[in-house]
Amino acid sequence: MIIGGDAGGMAAVSQVRKTRPDMEIVAFERGHYTSYSACGIPYLVGGEVGTLDELVARTPQEFRDRFRVDVRMRHEVIAIDLDARELEVRALEQDRTLRLGFDQALVATGGMPVRPELPGIDSEHVRGVQTLDDAKELLSLATRDDLHRVVVVGGGYIGLEMAEAFVNRGLHVTLVEAGDQVMRSLDPDMAALVVAAMREFGIDVLLGRAAAGFESGRVLTDEGDLEADLVVLGIGVAPNSALAKQSGLDVGVQDAVRVSRRQQTSADGVWAAGDCCESIHRVSGRPVHIALGTVANKQSRVAGINIGGGYATFGGVVGTAITRICHTEIARTGLSEREAADAGFVFRSTVIEGSTRARYLPGRKRTTVKLVTEERTGRLLGGQIVGEEGAAKRIDVLATAVTAGMNVTEMIDLDLGYAPPFSPVWDPVLVAARVASRT
Amino acid sequence: MIIGGDAGGMAAVSQVRKTRPDMEIVAFERGHYTSYSACGIPYLVGGEVGTLDELVARTPQEFRDRFRVDVRMRHEVIAIDLDARELEVRALEQDRTLRLGFDQALVATGGMPVRPELPGIDSEHVRGVQTLDDAKELLSLATRDDLHRVVVVGGGYIGLEMAEAFVNRGLHVTLVEAGDQVMRSLDPDMAALVVAAMREFGIDVLLGRAAAGFESGRVLTDEGDLEADLVVLGIGVAPNSALAKQSGLDVGVQDAVRVSRRQQTSADGVWAAGDCCESIHRVSGRPVHIALGTVANKQSRVAGINIGGGYATFGGVVGTAITRICHTEIARTGLSEREAADAGFVFRSTVIEGSTRARYLPGRKRTTVKLVTEERTGRLLGGQIVGEEGAAKRIDVLATAVTAGMNVTEMIDLDLGYAPPFSPVWDPVLVAARVASRT
Repeated sequence: MIIGGDAGGMAAVSQVRKTRPDMEIVAFERGHYTSYSACGIPYLVGGEVGTLDELVARTPQEFRDRFRVDVRMRHEVIAIDLDARELEVRALEQDRTLRLGFDQALVATGGMPVRPELPGIDSEHVRGVQTLDDAKELLSLATRDDLHRVVVVGGGYIGLEMAEAFVNRGLHVTLVEAGDQVMRSLDPDMAALVVAAMREFGIDVLLGRAAAGFESGRVLTDEGDLEADLVVLGIGVAPNSALAKQSGLDVGVQDAVRVSRRQQTSADGVWAAGDCCESIHRVSGRPVHIALGTVANKQSRVAGINIGGGYATFGGVVGTAITRICHTEIARTGLSEREAADAGFVFRSTVIEGSTRARYLPGRKRTTVKLVTEERTGRLLGGQIVGEEGAAKRIDVLATAVTAGMNVTEMIDLDLGYAPPFSPVWDPVLVAARVASRT
Repeated sequence: MIIGGDAGGMAAVSQVRKTRPDMEIVAFERGHYTSYSACGIPYLVGGEVGTLDELVARTPQEFRDRFRVDVRMRHEVIAIDLDARELEVRALEQDRTLRLGFDQALVATGGMPVRPELPGIDSEHVRGVQTLDDAKELLSLATRDDLHRVVVVGGGYIGLEMAEAFVNRGLHVTLVEAGDQVMRSLDPDMAALVVAAMREFGIDVLLGRAAAGFESGRVLTDEGDLEADLVVLGIGVAPNSALAKQSGLDVGVQDAVRVSRRQQTSADGVWAAGDCCESIHRVSGRPVHIALGTVANKQSRVAGINIGGGYATFGGVVGTAITRICHTEIARTGLSEREAADAGFVFRSTVIEGSTRARYLPGRKRTTVKLVTEERTGRLLGGQIVGEEGAAKRIDVLATAVTAGMNVTEMIDLDLGYAPPFSPVWDPVLVAARVASRT
């Protein structure tokens, strides 16, 4: 029984089928879509993706035909009875409740946009960005003639991507962030580069300004009102773990479902994967909640192998995230300064400016690389990159080096690819390693 | 005393100066330029780089002013007297010979294009690609009205890059390769993708066709003559180690100067770095000759630290190389199938087709990833990537994983960056790791 029809649940199916062609698989999805890309929503709203259907990776029918999954759409699991080994399921369209027994269950209830308890938060013109139903409404709003001013509340990844999307639609966009920086997973100095790029792109970025409530046509803030035909919430994603918690499964950080390295919950034969559950951060060793499609797919694959009778573990995350906002590429991995301090590391930071092409080629792109390294050993704890074309995916080298436990002196010798269209002879990542190792 | 004014020699200077501001540094360069980018020559000839001067990273005067190096241009070192600790130097312009004592010497005589002993090889219209003097002549030829047909002999990196450069100048280009594939450092199946791209771009690629000699206006081959107003040699680069060898320094693979991990030659106080010397391949553990600016810079940095009284070692190479030819990005690292077999590994190969963007974004780019893995352990021995935009620099993840000794099961969990403009939710590198680990 799979509870949730997106990546965290459905990526397990092909793994189960490899070893257990006989197993009966039932999947419950309360919404209208299976396996869609929430990450693609800003590109749909911004006009880069043609139609909503393109964001659907696999339809319910494909799961039925290819993997013989009994996919029940518009069915919401409302309780997991661990003693009776039964699910209580609400058929939303038929308005009736079923009870179904299970041998094994996979909890993949996903995440949900954080909605602060503010006056007017449930108004028609205040929208979250999570489901394809949200996407459909945002898209129709974005193309309406009478929509002029959009206020995005919250400076996380989705908030920033949505802000850009609406500018691409020709709208006036204001981003309101209560904290003193956007993208809290970056250090303030790197986040400042992002704000500069956003402002240059025409987004009105207001830092240290908290939304206090919503009225028709406006956002109330602590320093005056902002006009808004539409408000988009980009405050973050919380685990949607209420069902698991009510059912007696252990939860941990941010109430995310606690899982073992095999993705098993505190109950035997009950697994969890995706945005509803925890991961272990490889550097800090601590549980974290990271709502990302990559992590959901990896966890679900592991859960699927184990459900099918195999043995697999998930090694954990290093917190890699990348995006492109307003022609600026942004990437981070490992621990930021704040996270390193929280985890008790004595660390040092190094910031360098480099280039993603040979000096003499036209259209050379600038990039800033920051490394956070352990003071005593030089071990790479984390890295951040902000730059132009070719900058962001360089984070993958840092993510791999963090995973391998490399120190910056070892990194200097990394035999990275060099050719004039791709890199200077010293890749910016290696320049940063050299400076960090002080030789 | 630095013997050779390009990267292998001059990158050491700044390291020496850090610890030894007092040391007298003399550099001898037989040519007209210091520290230039030979890798940039195809982009100059093809028209992407405006002027030859842009390929010079640092002029002799900059070395004199910034690092107080006594740079002697057009001076060729003709002997190293290890017993007397003296260099014999020919001042080419003045036509006289000097003898100068040294405490420490850095041999950085570089590489030289392979010139097979064929009739007519020394003709005016048969050119190598190595120095900026070569570049100057090739550039003036490329823009001449009476130049129509170019034949490139040899399908290595430089040969392919030069072939593209001349097509970009509107010329008819034929590439003649004696072997049955281009780019011998790739496996044949991956090299075939490159040939397909070159042919689509309009380059006439003739495989298994050996040049037998050169006459005015033509290249003689074993299967008939080819018209050629200009012949460019792209057969490869050999270490320019005659001086070292004659002076009694040990040489190794392909007669490259043998060095320790500290870049010391067989003689005390005599160091070597760059295209003239060997590196150790981290996977095979064997000495290799790899003529690349990145390696030269790294080795020279290590030599400089040691010359200055510090202690540094070079960890070796994994044979990473990337290029972009005819809109196709090509990358390789670690061991190819042939190299893995030569090194005695029992290996398995995995080839997958992936994409460098989310499925639903327009302009999605295809990429082919091949992994060579050790059969018993799954350890990554090498990888090759051929694809469109965003393909080549993904080799850096493989190079880092090879360096860290990762196996493909560990690689599946690598927390690589994901966002729709950069990657599908499973990066092609991870897709390859999954298939290679067969789960």
